[in-house]
Amino acid sequence: MGTPVTIALDAMGGDHGPSVVIPAAAIALVRHPDLRFILVGDEAKIARELEANPQVAEKSEIVHTDVAITMDAKPSQALRRGRWKSSMWLAIQAVRDGHADAVVSAGNTGALMAMSKFCLKTIKGVDRPAIAAIWPTVDAECIVLDVGANVGADSRQLVEFTLMGAAMARALFGMERPTVGLLNIGVEEVKGVEEIRDAAALLKEAPLPIRYHGFIEGNDIGHGTVDVVVTDGFTGNIALKTAEGTAKQIAQYLRAAMGRSLLARLGAILAQGAFRALKEKMDPRQMNGGIFLGLNGIVVKSHGGTDATGFASAIDLGYEMASSGVVNRLGSDVAHFHTKLELEGAA
Amino acid sequence: MGTPVTIALDAMGGDHGPSVVIPAAAIALVRHPDLRFILVGDEAKIARELEANPQVAEKSEIVHTDVAITMDAKPSQALRRGRWKSSMWLAIQAVRDGHADAVVSAGNTGALMAMSKFCLKTIKGVDRPAIAAIWPTVDAECIVLDVGANVGADSRQLVEFTLMGAAMARALFGMERPTVGLLNIGVEEVKGVEEIRDAAALLKEAPLPIRYHGFIEGNDIGHGTVDVVVTDGFTGNIALKTAEGTAKQIAQYLRAAMGRSLLARLGAILAQGAFRALKEKMDPRQMNGGIFLGLNGIVVKSHGGTDATGFASAIDLGYEMASSGVVNRLGSDVAHFHTKLELEGAA
Repeated sequence: MGTPVTIALDAMGGDHGPSVVIPAAAIALVRHPDLRFILVGDEAKIARELEANPQVAEKSEIVHTDVAITMDAKPSQALRRGRWKSSMWLAIQAVRDGHADAVVSAGNTGALMAMSKFCLKTIKGVDRPAIAAIWPTVDAECIVLDVGANVGADSRQLVEFTLMGAAMARALFGMERPTVGLLNIGVEEVKGVEEIRDAAALLKEAPLPIRYHGFIEGNDIGHGTVDVVVTDGFTGNIALKTAEGTAKQIAQYLRAAMGRSLLARLGAILAQGAFRALKEKMDPRQMNGGIFLGLNGIVVKSHGGTDATGFASAIDLGYEMASSGVVNRLGSDVAHFHTKLELEGAA
Repeated sequence: MGTPVTIALDAMGGDHGPSVVIPAAAIALVRHPDLRFILVGDEAKIARELEANPQVAEKSEIVHTDVAITMDAKPSQALRRGRWKSSMWLAIQAVRDGHADAVVSAGNTGALMAMSKFCLKTIKGVDRPAIAAIWPTVDAECIVLDVGANVGADSRQLVEFTLMGAAMARALFGMERPTVGLLNIGVEEVKGVEEIRDAAALLKEAPLPIRYHGFIEGNDIGHGTVDVVVTDGFTGNIALKTAEGTAKQIAQYLRAAMGRSLLARLGAILAQGAFRALKEKMDPRQMNGGIFLGLNGIVVKSHGGTDATGFASAIDLGYEMASSGVVNRLGSDVAHFHTKLELEGAA
């Protein structure tokens, strides 16, 4: 079983608070019996949920607070008012102070990022953290970043995102030299904006622990052309939400088509096992969790509206990231890259 | 039947040339008997296809040339070498000289845009043309632009795109005041890049022939939240290709799921009518054609690899745009908007 992995859970985050977070911890605990939890939030509410989940209680420590960051909090407000007492802040702090190996929260994304940056600080040599998403592909999964931490990115930041994504691919997929593509419009060398072309030049030449594939287009993401897709937070966020919207739209078409005639309904009943497999494959809860990369600690953001199954996936992510020593590895990768750039600049 | 609508067809464009273009004309002619064609390209090859399609021959005039722009042509090369003689150029010229109401080509996008700009010029007051796509939504369709003519766009260009998209919505959907959304990350006022926030301010205040909805996110496109989605060409292209990739990916999941067990295969047979309806709904050929907006003439770009069904959809688009007088209307909308801006600037 190895050393236990402790995850700090913001029990008050998300639309449902402890009623989702504690059952989720129970699900994750079955998959990873070496998990320990620090449950941060309203002790009475947490205790009530723990009654139904004694196996979680056994592995948990409660940190009480009656302050929670609301889902509509502005990042700036979250940093100003009562930040030292909120469940989100205290959960992040548990990582900073070494009590937890990762934090998972379904709270407001902007507030979580602002607090994480302020509390954990970025890794030395990383300009800005990024949010990475795990994206299902035809045969497997890939990592896409940034999906919304920053608007825009210069070439150096895109290279930093590359290193972050590669470190995550090593942690989650166990591959030493993941393939990396830069999201662009058209694969020809001449296309796209200057930052992306400059980043391509850096990635082609620098001796990084990756295999640089080149430019990729939107349809390459789901096709699985590369293991890590690098883009700025504006483009990545729009690509992610467009894909989610398209999947939802097609599911609606499919339901409508299957309900249209008696034969179709009969066919759908016979094929219900297949439909269940498809539904599972398309279930966004299986891939729930954006990972904040580039910080001195692991922060996983779960969707605010998810259920226990979805939140458990986010805990799984935190567990796998924490077990793999990804933060240390990323730190040395970034240091190596910047040393190289400086040497070249000096030469 | 009204006045005939004449479409100039670049018969040599695309992967298949006349063997797709002429049968496509035959399909479109059934739907729109008042169509006339100017077929530009290798006369011998065109004539061979016309033998099998005498109804097209009857409505067509051939303009012979043995020069064609290759699919891998660089835009700059297309403008330099032999441009006056290529089928693409001569087809565009037919619109400029008033012989045709629209041009349809499946040739190289960059070359087609460069030639169209050079030959037709942009509408007075329009800074840069845009490529618009028709995007299927849950219940209907919406228009998305720019999907790749330009990288980046300032606030004034985004407003011009808005007017172009609105003119197209009036032409195709017959709505006088279409709803318009600006593609952004997060719907809060504070989010996104400066150009988009500035465009929002302009759209909110200017008395334009639209209903401004506000910011929308990637998932709103397919949901059908607005009639016209406005974004810059980099973001729009990535959103479009990501959605296409996601649809393809889900179709693969579905096929795999339905082939997995005997019961599923049986169910799939019973439900084959429903699957056919779904396939049709998801068929990219139904929506084939990017429209170049903002030029003094209508240019429709078909996918290079499409078949006759797909190319016929592109001809339909050209027909509908030409019949609706969209270019003149757009010209007056743009003039009106700029007059207003100048009056305000002077005040």
